[in-house]
Amino acid sequence: MERAKQIAGEAVANLVENNQVIGLGTGSTIVYTIKMLETRIKKEKLKFLAVPTSSCTKILAIKAGIPLTSLEEYPELDIAIDGADEVDPKLNLIKGKGAALTQEKIVASAAKQFFVAIDESKLVKCLGQNYSLPIEVLPCAWRAVERKMERMNGKPVLRLISETARPVITDNGNFILDVDFGLIKNPKQLEQKLDAIPGIIETGLFVGMTTAVYVGTKKNKIKVLKNNLEIS
Amino acid sequence: MERAKQIAGEAVANLVENNQVIGLGTGSTIVYTIKMLETRIKKEKLKFLAVPTSSCTKILAIKAGIPLTSLEEYPELDIAIDGADEVDPKLNLIKGKGAALTQEKIVASAAKQFFVAIDESKLVKCLGQNYSLPIEVLPCAWRAVERKMERMNGKPVLRLISETARPVITDNGNFILDVDFGLIKNPKQLEQKLDAIPGIIETGLFVGMTTAVYVGTKKNKIKVLKNNLEIS
Repeated sequence: MERAKQIAGEAVANLVENNQVIGLGTGSTIVYTIKMLETRIKKEKLKFLAVPTSSCTKILAIKAGIPLTSLEEYPELDIAIDGADEVDPKLNLIKGKGAALTQEKIVASAAKQFFVAIDESKLVKCLGQNYSLPIEVLPCAWRAVERKMERMNGKPVLRLISETARPVITDNGNFILDVDFGLIKNPKQLEQKLDAIPGIIETGLFVGMTTAVYVGTKKNKIKVLKNNLEIS
Repeated sequence: MERAKQIAGEAVANLVENNQVIGLGTGSTIVYTIKMLETRIKKEKLKFLAVPTSSCTKILAIKAGIPLTSLEEYPELDIAIDGADEVDPKLNLIKGKGAALTQEKIVASAAKQFFVAIDESKLVKCLGQNYSLPIEVLPCAWRAVERKMERMNGKPVLRLISETARPVITDNGNFILDVDFGLIKNPKQLEQKLDAIPGIIETGLFVGMTTAVYVGTKKNKIKVLKNNLEIS
């Protein structure tokens, strides 16, 4: 799926237009977006500013010579570009494998249009099919939230740095709970319930935010999905 | 109103029973609660553990000899005790003048019962009557959230340390926006809308969380309110 990722990551890089301010996501697909943007800056003299969604993307973007800015300076963005861990037929997403979900969601919600790049293995009939739902929680609240997830029939696991007992720390200094809710049949309703729980900073559910999804296929082509309609 | 505050703060201190684990709020009324708990520890040999809701309360509690614990160790509390800036007839609250609203809400939501101590000047017919609504926001998102508050007809002001341009930083390292929404006629609905906005950590609206309110009156008496019923 590496080649499919690359095709999708590059396709969304080609959406960026001169003089835009863009949100730049996080993850292995976006690595290809960053490389393509680097090429476009060099070859086309493309000019734009990017708001990175993580310290990880910030480092990669600086190395690629992409000029950075912040949401403080540009609270409204032209477009945001990001990957996803799962995409359902209504283009709702699960994100957060890279622990950057909160910044990713802030940036996506500040953009006029939000484009997602994935390989086709990320397409699911129902969210929760392959991944647990990542939830960013304040460190002081992780156990209290864990209890509440259990009462909602979720199975929460505190995300650790593998082979250590050290918890993963987000760019905001918080923890991640990966909560298995089984199949998430009503993502909007689940999101509302979780949003109401004190101690939860943000969840990896992105409901009704996506403008279009660029899917890299096994046959090395691009499919564009928009509200369950395949466009090209 | 200082004497009324004292009476209320002391009344809720008398709710604490032996061997409980309690949540200990923040603010000028709770200062009296802490003093009374110090007295009860000395005189009655009262034994309990307290989860503080702020660095401020933590310091005061340590000085008062109150044994502390955390929500990580005790994710469920017997009772939580706190003040409030406004209390409406349904016992919904506005909190956050002390910038501790997120921890206060986490702690209150972890407790089986939540008791509020106020002087009677805090009673209002409708939330928003005297105070703006404090909202804790991630620093990177303050301007993006500010825009969204304006679109919801709120008037947001970034809270600064008075006479400096330095923003108030919460115990979680975040900013506070004080948002004037005028009279808040449907606090539950407003809370749901705000919860859904990425970048907002928590709001100062406490809807449907209060067990009872202990009100210190001008005549130096205590009134107990429970779901709009005056009990004593």
